[in-house]
Amino acid sequence: MEKIRTAVIGAGYRGRYLISLLQHIDSFDIIAVSDISPKLPETIAQLFQGKVLPQIYHSGTDDYLRMLDETKPDLVIIASPWHLHKAQAINALRAGCHVAIEVKGALDNDEYPDIIAQSRQSGKEVFPLENTLFRDDILAINNMVQAGVFGQLVFLQGGYRHDLTYILVDNEGNFGPKNGSESEWRSHYYETENGDLYPTHGLAPLCMFLGVNRTDHIKTIASFSTAPGVGLRACIARRKGADCDEAHRTFEMGDVVTSILQTDSGTQITLLHDTTLPRPRSLNYEVQGTKGIWNAEKKAIYIDGVSPSEDWEPDEKYIQQYKHRFWQRWEKEALLYDGHHQGMDYIMLKVLGEALLGRESYPATLADMATWAAVTPRSKESIKQNRPVPFPRY
Amino acid sequence: MEKIRTAVIGAGYRGRYLISLLQHIDSFDIIAVSDISPKLPETIAQLFQGKVLPQIYHSGTDDYLRMLDETKPDLVIIASPWHLHKAQAINALRAGCHVAIEVKGALDNDEYPDIIAQSRQSGKEVFPLENTLFRDDILAINNMVQAGVFGQLVFLQGGYRHDLTYILVDNEGNFGPKNGSESEWRSHYYETENGDLYPTHGLAPLCMFLGVNRTDHIKTIASFSTAPGVGLRACIARRKGADCDEAHRTFEMGDVVTSILQTDSGTQITLLHDTTLPRPRSLNYEVQGTKGIWNAEKKAIYIDGVSPSEDWEPDEKYIQQYKHRFWQRWEKEALLYDGHHQGMDYIMLKVLGEALLGRESYPATLADMATWAAVTPRSKESIKQNRPVPFPRY
Repeated sequence: MEKIRTAVIGAGYRGRYLISLLQHIDSFDIIAVSDISPKLPETIAQLFQGKVLPQIYHSGTDDYLRMLDETKPDLVIIASPWHLHKAQAINALRAGCHVAIEVKGALDNDEYPDIIAQSRQSGKEVFPLENTLFRDDILAINNMVQAGVFGQLVFLQGGYRHDLTYILVDNEGNFGPKNGSESEWRSHYYETENGDLYPTHGLAPLCMFLGVNRTDHIKTIASFSTAPGVGLRACIARRKGADCDEAHRTFEMGDVVTSILQTDSGTQITLLHDTTLPRPRSLNYEVQGTKGIWNAEKKAIYIDGVSPSEDWEPDEKYIQQYKHRFWQRWEKEALLYDGHHQGMDYIMLKVLGEALLGRESYPATLADMATWAAVTPRSKESIKQNRPVPFPRY
Repeated sequence: MEKIRTAVIGAGYRGRYLISLLQHIDSFDIIAVSDISPKLPETIAQLFQGKVLPQIYHSGTDDYLRMLDETKPDLVIIASPWHLHKAQAINALRAGCHVAIEVKGALDNDEYPDIIAQSRQSGKEVFPLENTLFRDDILAINNMVQAGVFGQLVFLQGGYRHDLTYILVDNEGNFGPKNGSESEWRSHYYETENGDLYPTHGLAPLCMFLGVNRTDHIKTIASFSTAPGVGLRACIARRKGADCDEAHRTFEMGDVVTSILQTDSGTQITLLHDTTLPRPRSLNYEVQGTKGIWNAEKKAIYIDGVSPSEDWEPDEKYIQQYKHRFWQRWEKEALLYDGHHQGMDYIMLKVLGEALLGRESYPATLADMATWAAVTPRSKESIKQNRPVPFPRY
């Protein structure tokens, strides 16, 4: 394999962005794209101006099956709405393709185990597209963790703290699906679920630091929710008026869901899901061990016996000193093509290509993805039962 | 009452500091001090150079009873080791004195209820000496909360994140009681307890913001501990060598204890106790509501529709704009006399004096103190039972 013949399912906001990056990476050849949108031909024409156009498939939700059959790609990238991932991944594996799949919480307990079973049966790999693993600072901190700079890790924090009301509620204060927006499929969950809907960005780097699924395992999860819908109702009241009916409607989702994950070794991870209150976004990373601590929000590090007594140091010097080889090699092109996500999406796809060509090892597996995603159904169970519940192993 | 005739029990590190501040506040007249130390006469001579000396009582742990009997103070300030507080407070109340008492976690479930009962019976007040309530930023943030700037509060964080290994382990790597140091009475708890030993600094301001014991109540607590003794053993190994026996001994206390407190209104408080890992100190305050958020570590605020989109603002402007009347009136003298604690101890004692003279209202009650302190025994129960446990009401 010299070029990876690549098909993409889903040409929404995320799919289009991935395609635009893949075009800059030599190892990929985008041969086909499927999406249910009738506008797909224009979308593709615009994305591939002056280049060879991929085949397009847009006659209904099952047209990607025809794409798999006709184009026989090496790799299928899945960037469709959450509820479609499982069937698409399983069908792509069955068709003999490797799969790279966008991240999300599991919709039920069986979702990822079924994909794992199919991956084993087909002998094909599934790569989680978890971009936070490829951040410059995250990879450098991982180098520091592996070098023992923080000592034995004891306490870690992460989360998804991102005000999504701009997606969930429109400017006139209407909650719910809007044509052509992410809310089309995302808003629904806030009416029916209470749990951590989107755990992977906050959790994946922490699992990498801890060696989860290698040298340690998550044993239990205990989740807690604030009162449901308070932030959404306040947002609707602000935009539509406090007197309208919608400002008094109910939701299932609490504004902030806190999950405490405990590992076999006695380490603890605190994970937040915080998406309906006004705030600057943050992934809330903190890594604390027996020799020091990193706090991403402060962009600061403290190392015992190295940092001035009880004083934080800016983390920049350390991030440079422990820079990962991915960033040593590809930083310039990553920042050039992927300014929007500070290079991490580019590095992720670059490493994906190198991994498929046997030149690099991808830092996360399908089992890892199943672990991160399991937070969603297990956090819902824990909230319902008001007690810690066991965490699955994959 | 023009001057408050004041007796102090405990002239250790904390008691001496309080005495030095009280000398600058006109409303107090320090008439007596008791402490078991044989060095008390020298200590007092040094503290009161050129001033009228108070009576001193230092013949044993019960000599403070003679002090109460002979000097009949209006107010007794208690700054002794934790296990002595309850009996001393009850005896001072019985002697007809008001009491101001240093903060700590409750040693058992009955400690504060017994003090509350005695306070009612004696008709005398107990003032918690919780200095964080009097911080410039905390009082300004409270003004903002009361003015509705953050909207309805949803999610709050606080904690005691302070590396105490400098007290618990000496430079040669020996753990345990050292003569004349706080470890004399504090270190013992790390060998026998696992819970949040010191909840009040992190929790008290959050309870003030939320109106706990006024308009809302804490309903449940769920606590989680990391593996016990990891940080202490690592510290001993660093100072004494990894091969010594003491570097392999056991402790009960986990390095980080996380407690999730849920209130009747559905608000959540996350509280940390983090005292045996190397790190800069922090009380970890965060206040998040339907209109905005304050993060003390970042010294930053975000208010919906006011702050630039998704961007933190430095909190200083707000702290100035909403400055509390205590700080408007007494900032200069507070910073002059109490540089060590940025004025908050001075303001606290000033307000205590004004409250006893009927000119101000003290912002926390004995019931509040009982609530904060209840975290200690209840967190231990929750960790033991591995489930949320009910929280008491006072």
